[in-house]
Amino acid sequence: MSIRVTIWNEFRHEQKTESKWYPLIHSHYPEGMHKAIGEHLLAMDNDIDVAYATLDMPEHGLTDEVLDNTDVLVWWGHMAHQEVDDAIVAKVCDRVLRGMGLIVLHSGHHSKVFKKLMGTTGNLCWREDSEHCRVFNVAPYHPITEGIGDSFVIDGEETYTEYFDIPKPDDLIFISWWKGGEVFRSGCTFTRGAGKIFYFQPGHETFPTYHNPTVLKVIDNAVHWAKPVRMIEELKCPMVRPTEEDIHRALNPEDFGGEKLPANERHTWTATREPYFPEEK
Amino acid sequence: MSIRVTIWNEFRHEQKTESKWYPLIHSHYPEGMHKAIGEHLLAMDNDIDVAYATLDMPEHGLTDEVLDNTDVLVWWGHMAHQEVDDAIVAKVCDRVLRGMGLIVLHSGHHSKVFKKLMGTTGNLCWREDSEHCRVFNVAPYHPITEGIGDSFVIDGEETYTEYFDIPKPDDLIFISWWKGGEVFRSGCTFTRGAGKIFYFQPGHETFPTYHNPTVLKVIDNAVHWAKPVRMIEELKCPMVRPTEEDIHRALNPEDFGGEKLPANERHTWTATREPYFPEEK
Amino acid sequence: MSIRVTIWNEFRHEQKTESKWYPLIHSHYPEGMHKAIGEHLLAMDNDIDVAYATLDMPEHGLTDEVLDNTDVLVWWGHMAHQEVDDAIVAKVCDRVLRGMGLIVLHSGHHSKVFKKLMGTTGNLCWREDSEHCRVFNVAPYHPITEGIGDSFVIDGEETYTEYFDIPKPDDLIFISWWKGGEVFRSGCTFTRGAGKIFYFQPGHETFPTYHNPTVLKVIDNAVHWAKPVRMIEELKCPMVRPTEEDIHRALNPEDFGGEKLPANERHTWTATREPYFPEEK
Amino acid sequence: MSIRVTIWNEFRHEQKTESKWYPLIHSHYPEGMHKAIGEHLLAMDNDIDVAYATLDMPEHGLTDEVLDNTDVLVWWGHMAHQEVDDAIVAKVCDRVLRGMGLIVLHSGHHSKVFKKLMGTTGNLCWREDSEHCRVFNVAPYHPITEGIGDSFVIDGEETYTEYFDIPKPDDLIFISWWKGGEVFRSGCTFTRGAGKIFYFQPGHETFPTYHNPTVLKVIDNAVHWAKPVRMIEELKCPMVRPTEEDIHRALNPEDFGGEKLPANERHTWTATREPYFPEEK
Repeated sequence: MSIRVTIWNEFRHEQKTESKWYPLIHSHYPEGMHKAIGEHLLAMDNDIDVAYATLDMPEHGLTDEVLDNTDVLVWWGHMAHQEVDDAIVAKVCDRVLRGMGLIVLHSGHHSKVFKKLMGTTGNLCWREDSEHCRVFNVAPYHPITEGIGDSFVIDGEETYTEYFDIPKPDDLIFISWWKGGEVFRSGCTFTRGAGKIFYFQPGHETFPTYHNPTVLKVIDNAVHWAKPVRMIEELKCPMVRPTEEDIHRALNPEDFGGEKLPANERHTWTATREPYFPEEK
Repeated sequence: MSIRVTIWNEFRHEQKTESKWYPLIHSHYPEGMHKAIGEHLLAMDNDIDVAYATLDMPEHGLTDEVLDNTDVLVWWGHMAHQEVDDAIVAKVCDRVLRGMGLIVLHSGHHSKVFKKLMGTTGNLCWREDSEHCRVFNVAPYHPITEGIGDSFVIDGEETYTEYFDIPKPDDLIFISWWKGGEVFRSGCTFTRGAGKIFYFQPGHETFPTYHNPTVLKVIDNAVHWAKPVRMIEELKCPMVRPTEEDIHRALNPEDFGGEKLPANERHTWTATREPYFPEEK
Repeated sequence: MSIRVTIWNEFRHEQKTESKWYPLIHSHYPEGMHKAIGEHLLAMDNDIDVAYATLDMPEHGLTDEVLDNTDVLVWWGHMAHQEVDDAIVAKVCDRVLRGMGLIVLHSGHHSKVFKKLMGTTGNLCWREDSEHCRVFNVAPYHPITEGIGDSFVIDGEETYTEYFDIPKPDDLIFISWWKGGEVFRSGCTFTRGAGKIFYFQPGHETFPTYHNPTVLKVIDNAVHWAKPVRMIEELKCPMVRPTEEDIHRALNPEDFGGEKLPANERHTWTATREPYFPEEK
Repeated sequence: MSIRVTIWNEFRHEQKTESKWYPLIHSHYPEGMHKAIGEHLLAMDNDIDVAYATLDMPEHGLTDEVLDNTDVLVWWGHMAHQEVDDAIVAKVCDRVLRGMGLIVLHSGHHSKVFKKLMGTTGNLCWREDSEHCRVFNVAPYHPITEGIGDSFVIDGEETYTEYFDIPKPDDLIFISWWKGGEVFRSGCTFTRGAGKIFYFQPGHETFPTYHNPTVLKVIDNAVHWAKPVRMIEELKCPMVRPTEEDIHRALNPEDFGGEKLPANERHTWTATREPYFPEEK
């Protein structure tokens, strides 16, 4: 069954014709970064479906119907994070906790969704130059690195550098090197509730990064990795009690396919419990 | 130098005289849980100072002056999480990211501060019974377990059980067992920015838990563990550039006490870089 | 392509006719635990192939040819860990570091293979009783828990309890509860090199555990999770040098599809690098 | 009480007068790297005692008496790892599992002790050039980074680069950048049993790295971090049984300072246990 991917893009830079960067951005992404990513993914992967949502759509394109039919949400935003509606942010985070996957790209480190799930600022140090960047793979066991060698080059990317204010990643997938003297934890996984999150650094709007086959391969791998194992219907905090059946089952395992202990083992506990290490230092 | 501990307590249960539980709560904590914890800690530890803050104080007792003089904040809340002012929550979280330690006790799992830093709901399953609880130490290397043996008993504690909606703990310190059939990750560490956080489950208001020497020893250890390594002045997202001096230093290490490479090593790179593992699977 | 699973079983208990436990073990596993696991997996999963190897086969059944055709190795051993040849252990560990998956079951915690990969003793506390055990799922995001609810019961299993001498698991998947007062980290993942490892506690030889559908579902999920992302040909420690082409590419990204910086941005570095946090505390 | 540090150094390079590197090594470390590290630590820290052990001493200087009086062992080795006696390696690893701290420096990544505790090869990629190296601090919360800013420069160090074959560090403390295009996880913590381990990359024998105040500050911080929380007397795998007293305590908490439940709560379990999430996907 296909993985249903929704690619959310702010889609402002690509339309800001008055900016000096517009020609460059437009040359790379005439229909928007989301379309570039989506079309490349569809071309390389038969097991996904792609839908698109942007900031300026009603409800930012993230209606209940869209979210209910999204297995993995990809998020790119930069200059208008503050315009994302808090109620939509809450819905997205709720879906992630319930199982939806989330891939956060580049300047999405400052998106409301990412910061809310992380509990940190997402701050980092940066420089909008076009510098040679080498991305090192430090997780050869991880499915996000399938088909990815020990390193790959991006010939020009915005420099991000540490200190990157994220919680400790569950898995550090990539570390990037920039010629100017910078390192950055550029591929990081997290989990929140039943949901899996992948942050991936490359993707400044003035570079053709989302036409880079290696970058796209990573995103495709991440979609497969992040797909839900389950969708929890409702997040709740219930009171629980063992039932009489639970108790009977615990005391009489032989009625449930377990073994009845010999009488002497069942009733007499005589060995002393010696602590593995004692209470005093 | 003493560690400056501020103990924040909701302090509502202990004053709710009309509740049927009041006599019991009052018998354990006539001046409030915060006073009990604070006085016990002062009696057992010469290296801490203790201040108190409660929900109903102005600014919940967490003025800038109090927070600026707090190394570790201890938090207990239960029935009035929603009354904690969002601006105060933001200030507390900012301090944690900048380095302040935080110890979250028992029903604090649902506090605004804890949920904001975790990015999850803090939900769990529970039962307000007084059940025998055994707490297992699964982190014998961790300073929070100093003087704590391989397990200890709390003779009556509210049952909390999995699934506990927290991110994966950095360190799982304790796992608790309840007679009714429950387990719970009852001691968990996290880091956010420069700050360290410890969640510790015991402490339902109707039990004398905060007079239990082992529980107090854990809290005291956690205070020492959580104290700041640094306080960052301001969380920011700066542009950075290597300076001319940086560049000169990189190209001419011999001017800074490093070694000048022999000419042939400095200028001719002839060995091929063979990838440790290649790009194709 | 099918995942090639080799199930390695000590296969001594099932043949030790003189033991008082033989009738019970034989009733559950007339052809050995490996055959039971393998046949159940094949019945529930069309995407795997199963081969078998036992201690008493030549080279313990783990010839180069078998290992070269194994994606995931499942290991059960108990009474004869010391008889496993060190050279075979080294070959298995080498394959894991190069990418082969490994699932270690029950008393395999003391196998040479597991201890060598972990670097710890694998010690734990235990009791060979048949007690009601409830296994809690604390990793709802993890593919090993696909189709597994928030907890499940095993009506009789040997009690294992903490302190379990393993390194901190990458992911803690399951925590088990026994009626006698014990908890145990019963499902744990680790990675070593390119390989993924899953330890799963249930499976004492006198119980029908490996006919339990939930236990088998977990093992099947683990097989899919642990399959190699890559197989590294050889583990090595090479000298590396950037080539002249590497250097040219770094200095002239415009020749590789990158952007040539405007002259003023390329050559004059004027902004001071202000540290995100300074060197003094 | 002082932390008792034993610094173990191979001490072969510093004495190999026929090597072309001898003059350089001798100029930095006339009495050996161990003496340099030890004397600097003693000068900067009043709370430690330092002892020395080298490869060519009887039992490599690591007699039972020395190890029994060692809180933290520092290890530097390079050209003679294979000469370290396996029985001594086993003793050292046993002490670490029981609580002793271990700091592994530079080429110690290939020491028998480190590889045995890690369960991996310790392989990496390398280049013996003197290159400008910048070390980034990615763990501002961690006591190993006390007094360490967001990055520091080493004006010439041997280049190590990924893929570094270690298990996933518990905490990644430092990431290093080399001018030639390399990154490396240069400060990593691990735990094994009750023991804490810190790997720290700088320290090639031809550089004056162990006279670098920042490097020494890190090592001193690591000594304090790694000191034992406990020393376990003996690693064992005991059978455990709850005693009659344990059972009585669980069923009658009121006899131990707990609360007797009202009769109706004690005996009738009527609420249904609703799963937090159900068993089917």
